[in-house]
Formats: sequence, structure tokens, C-alpha cells
Amino acid sequence: MAAMSTLHATYRLTCSANDIAQRAQALALEQSIEMPLEAVSDPQIQDLSVAEVIEITPRDEQQFDVIIALKLATIGAEAGQLLNMLFGNCSLQEDVRLVDIEFPAALGGMFPGPRHGMAGIRATLGVPARALTCTALKPQGLSPAALAALCATFASAGIDIIKDDHGIANQAYAPFVPRVRACQRALREVISRTGKKVIYAPSLSGSPRQLHAQLEFAREEEIEMALVSPMIMGIPTFRELVDEHPAMMFMAHPALSGALRIAPPLFYGKLFRLFGADAVIFPNFGGRFSFSRDTCHDLVAGARAAWANVKPALPVPAGGMSVARVPEMLTAYGADSMLLIGGGLLSAGDALFERSQQFVEAVQFFTGYHA
Amino acid sequence: MAAMSTLHATYRLTCSANDIAQRAQALALEQSIEMPLEAVSDPQIQDLSVAEVIEITPRDEQQFDVIIALKLATIGAEAGQLLNMLFGNCSLQEDVRLVDIEFPAALGGMFPGPRHGMAGIRATLGVPARALTCTALKPQGLSPAALAALCATFASAGIDIIKDDHGIANQAYAPFVPRVRACQRALREVISRTGKKVIYAPSLSGSPRQLHAQLEFAREEEIEMALVSPMIMGIPTFRELVDEHPAMMFMAHPALSGALRIAPPLFYGKLFRLFGADAVIFPNFGGRFSFSRDTCHDLVAGARAAWANVKPALPVPAGGMSVARVPEMLTAYGADSMLLIGGGLLSAGDALFERSQQFVEAVQFFTGYHA
Repeated sequence: MAAMSTLHATYRLTCSANDIAQRAQALALEQSIEMPLEAVSDPQIQDLSVAEVIEITPRDEQQFDVIIALKLATIGAEAGQLLNMLFGNCSLQEDVRLVDIEFPAALGGMFPGPRHGMAGIRATLGVPARALTCTALKPQGLSPAALAALCATFASAGIDIIKDDHGIANQAYAPFVPRVRACQRALREVISRTGKKVIYAPSLSGSPRQLHAQLEFAREEEIEMALVSPMIMGIPTFRELVDEHPAMMFMAHPALSGALRIAPPLFYGKLFRLFGADAVIFPNFGGRFSFSRDTCHDLVAGARAAWANVKPALPVPAGGMSVARVPEMLTAYGADSMLLIGGGLLSAGDALFERSQQFVEAVQFFTGYHA
Repeated sequence: MAAMSTLHATYRLTCSANDIAQRAQALALEQSIEMPLEAVSDPQIQDLSVAEVIEITPRDEQQFDVIIALKLATIGAEAGQLLNMLFGNCSLQEDVRLVDIEFPAALGGMFPGPRHGMAGIRATLGVPARALTCTALKPQGLSPAALAALCATFASAGIDIIKDDHGIANQAYAPFVPRVRACQRALREVISRTGKKVIYAPSLSGSPRQLHAQLEFAREEEIEMALVSPMIMGIPTFRELVDEHPAMMFMAHPALSGALRIAPPLFYGKLFRLFGADAVIFPNFGGRFSFSRDTCHDLVAGARAAWANVKPALPVPAGGMSVARVPEMLTAYGADSMLLIGGGLLSAGDALFERSQQFVEAVQFFTGYHA
């Protein structure tokens, strides 16, 4: 039988040189048949489902990069099963990190990626070239009216996308329906006055049925983008939302996923994109989170790289950002990104409108905006 | 205004003594309003949503346990939002581990826990007191007929619960419907011959709609238990399955969740139980996974402890188990557990039936079984 189509995954193992060959082989079995190879009696299994060690490269005396070929047949076209095969059991083994995957072309057909992507977001906003601006409605605890007032202030200042804070769910103080209605109405009023397109992206939460219902309501309200936390709702649930709500754009938030031991450039840059995120929020370097500048650079490269039929996603650095850092951020990320400043605007208090305007102007100025 | 109802969460922070007070306060804000307290103008927010540092206890010079009171109002009755508030953003901060939570009574009403629990599983099997036995159908790659033949062998040997390997999804070589039909038919034949009750627990996978459809089909086939990976399908999706399929028992698998930096006793022992798992698989100590004996002990205690209206879940140690280790396992876990041996049985090859019987007899013998 010819070699089955495979997916190459690179794992970083902490292990001694003496043990690495055996450890790598154990990992390949763990991530495929989960039993000793000797105990497999059916010879077809080798071709159908057993993963194989392709290459072992030492990084130093205690670290090795191991490339393992997983059979595509074990994954099917399921996003959850892809994660399961890549990092299901070995997530429980502390000496393993998943650092990268190399997609065979076949996978692009199995997971079509974002429906809109960076280009779709730009087209919707009518902003073809400059970096985009984003902010968040918070703190949670505010009423729909108070959130809508914030939304109006941000929109008036010219911010492109205003999202709910990811902690805003369906709480009693601001349930989804009245919140979305109030914020979207506030936006419409500003847009009719300024003529400048603005998108409000409400945060979805709850069970799959509730998520679908929220998206239905959002569509009726002419909402064009939703904020989702794929690891909280579950990757297969996220895929279902992308499949069934083709007009909606999705901005993915990394909540709950930070400790996965899957390299952030792979998880947020490639996998979130592959699963359908049009925009991907990630923790900016130098903020209150722990990503390095190199990690952020690689993540952004993964989100934007040409990749078969999978559209580029818009990278959205966030966390610890301020208007003063705009030039630094644009130097780091370039124009094909969206800067998200939340607390850094809200801390302006009564000067919120002015600071939001400064944010917008700084981004326009430093990316050579032409109105 | 009176103090809002709160949930106390304990985080372990790696931090210097000089910085811990400030770091703890930053964490409380990160996990609630995500902005500086000074920037909050509405005085009601303090009562509604701001989390507060309750206590800081040094563990050593670089580690502190910090108890933070999260407002229940920020969680609502949503499982995903509970995880979001507990560990959404701070999952991205490497100095933070979530080690425990203390549930207020109110939470028991919000998340009712398992519908059947350990007692329900015992009642279904008709085994009131002894430890239970479990094994797995694998490797993936086998056809439905081959899996069904394995199922028959295990059932004939007297094993209580036979689950699909968690890597078995809906792959072309053994799709859900023919697989479940074949395995359940094989079980029925054995049961009609031996009179001994056996449960087959197929693995669910796919999008929420596919999961519901699989459970519908399973119910028609009189399947009584399903294997789920809550972190792969998503916690809110798992909750929805539990809510909408009340007759089904659920065995939860830890795939993808091992690296979360949430203490395993809390995550698997308490939270999986709270979200509705009737049985909870976890990596046994001394196997190929990294849990310590103490961790396993605490996890089992969390799954079984009396806890308001939340039924105890059945702990299922797995990984690196063998028939020879049965006495050790029973000493460690006691009779209110289910031992899962997969590869340790399958490696017997042609002697699979005999080794499976030895497993059953060892468990019966060492827990003083009375037929």
C-alpha cells in the first residue's frame, strides 16, 4: 500500500540524548494508536493509523525537536479531532510542547479557514491599506445604556472596530439582546452623523444553541462581526458557527488557551486561522502578558502568510498598549494589523473621546493614511 | 449595598515578596474588570463585578497562595463563563496557577453536576460495592467488525465498561453509526449468554450538531454511556449534552486539557464533576503521564467528596496500568473507583480473553467481591 497522506507535526521534547529515540517513538504511539506496536496484530493498522517518527534534531543537550507524521485518515475533517491527534494525550505529558505543523495541501480542503479574513474586514470597513484600530467596551458590570454610551464615544472618535470585553457574557446587568441592541443603535446614530464606517463586535457566550441564537439575533441587528473565545466554547463549536453563519466575521480571543504548551504562533497564528478566525487577538509583547517579541512576530507571520486556499487573518495585538506605543507597535507589526487599546483609552476618564481620537490619529499618521 | 455573593478562587503566584501585594491585586482586576480601578467611574461596578484579594499566604520565598473573591454575578450560570472568569486571561500569564476554588452553595444550583454519578453507574451495572473494571477498544484503524470482536472478548471476560479509545472519532475506517451498531450488537449477544451486565461507551466527536445526532442514535441503540473529551468539544457544549440527554451517562476524558495550569484535582475532580461527568478518567501515577500519587489522591477525593446537591463522580485511573498493579491501585483508590486497563490487556495478543479475565478476577478478589 502506498504511504497514506500525512501531516507533519514538530514536538519539542525535554529528554536526555540516550532516551530521545525511545521517547520520540513512544510519543508517536501515544498520539496515534495508544498501545504498544507489538500488540497490534492487524498489518493494515500500520498504514492506516500508526504515527511515525520522521526526524529528530537536537536543540541542546536536553531538548530535541521531533517531527512526527500523523496519518490524515485518523483526523478526518474534524477540527476537534485534529487537536486530539496533535495534542490530546500528550498535553498530559510535561516534557512535550507542540511547536509547529506543516500542512499538507489536503488539509486546506478539510478546513477552509476564514470566510472573510483580513481582506474581508478591510473591504467592510472601506479601509484598504492603513493599520486598523480597535477598542473594548468595559468594565463588565456596566448597563447596556452605559456600554452604548461608551460605544458612541469610541465611534465618534473614529475607531474602526469596537468589541465587547471578552468577560462580558450574558450577565444579568447587561444581557446579550438589550446590550447588542443598545450598542448597535448607538453606532448607527454616529455613523449617520459622521459617515465613517464602524463595526461593533459583541461577545458571544453560552451553550452552542445559545451561540447560534445570539448570532441569529446579531444578524437581524446587522451586526457584522462577533467576538468568540474558541477554547472556551470549544473548537468544534467555533467551526460550526463559522460554517453556519457565513456572513458573520469572527474575532478570536485567546481566553483559557494560554497555558496549552502549544506554541502561540502555531495555535493563534495558524490553527485559529485554519478554523475560521477572520481576526486573531493575541497578547502583545511588553504588556502584562508573557509573549516575547519574537513570538509575536512569528504569530503575525503565521496569520498573514500565503497558504494555499486559506485566507490571511488579521492579527490584533492587545494588552498593555497605549497611544504612546502606537509608533512602536506599527514598526513591529506593519500596516496589516489592528491595534487594540482598551484600558489604555478608558483610563483617560473624562478625556476618553480625546484620547481615542489621538489613538486614531496616531495610527493614521504613522501608517501614512490617505483619506 | 450588601456584599454580593462571591466565589473564592485560590491562585498560586510565582512572585517576590516585595511584589506580591501588587501582583495579587493586578490578578484580581485581570480576572474581573480588566482595567485599572482608577479608571472605573461608576461606583456600582465595585459591588457588581470587581474581584477582590481576600488573603495572601506565602508558601516559600517565591510562591504565594492568593485567594481572590470573584463576584458570582459575573459568571451567571454558564460553565464557559465560569472558566473564563477563573482562568480566561490569566491562562496567558505564566506565573499563575489556579489551584482550588471554594464553591458557595449557590453554585450547586447553577451547575447541578452529574445526573447519575457513581451511584447511577453502580445501579445500572448492578454492582453495589466492589471496584469496577473498564477497558478500551483500540487501536484506531480497526473496522467496526474488528472492534466489535474485541468488545465481545472483553465482555465475555466480565469487564464492566468497555469504552472506545478516545482517539476513535468518526474516521472513514470506523464511522460512528456502523461502529456503535456493531459493538452494541456484540455486547447484546454476550449479555444474553452470560447474563452479566456490560456497558459499551462509544466516543463522541464532531460539531455540537453531530454530537447531538450521535447521542440520538446511541439512545436508539440503547447505549447507556458515552465517552466525551470536554476540553476538545468545549465545556459549554458538554453542559448542553448533559442537559439535553438526561438518560445518558458521561465518562469524561482529559484530552487536550493536561497543560492548563489548573490543578488536576480541581479541574478533573471538581469541575468536570460539577459540569456533569458521571465518571472521570485521569492519568494514574506511575504510568506514562506525570501526575503524582498525591495529585491522584486529591483528585479522587474531589470527585467523591460530599458536596451539597452535587452527586459524587466515579474516578477512573488510567494509563500505565496492568493486572499486576491491581492490588496497588485498589489500595490507593479503594472500592469506589473504576480501574481502566487498555494497552495492558491488548498486549496479551492471543491471550486477550485470559488476561481480561485475570483483570476482572483480580479486582473482584482484592475488593472482596460477593457475587
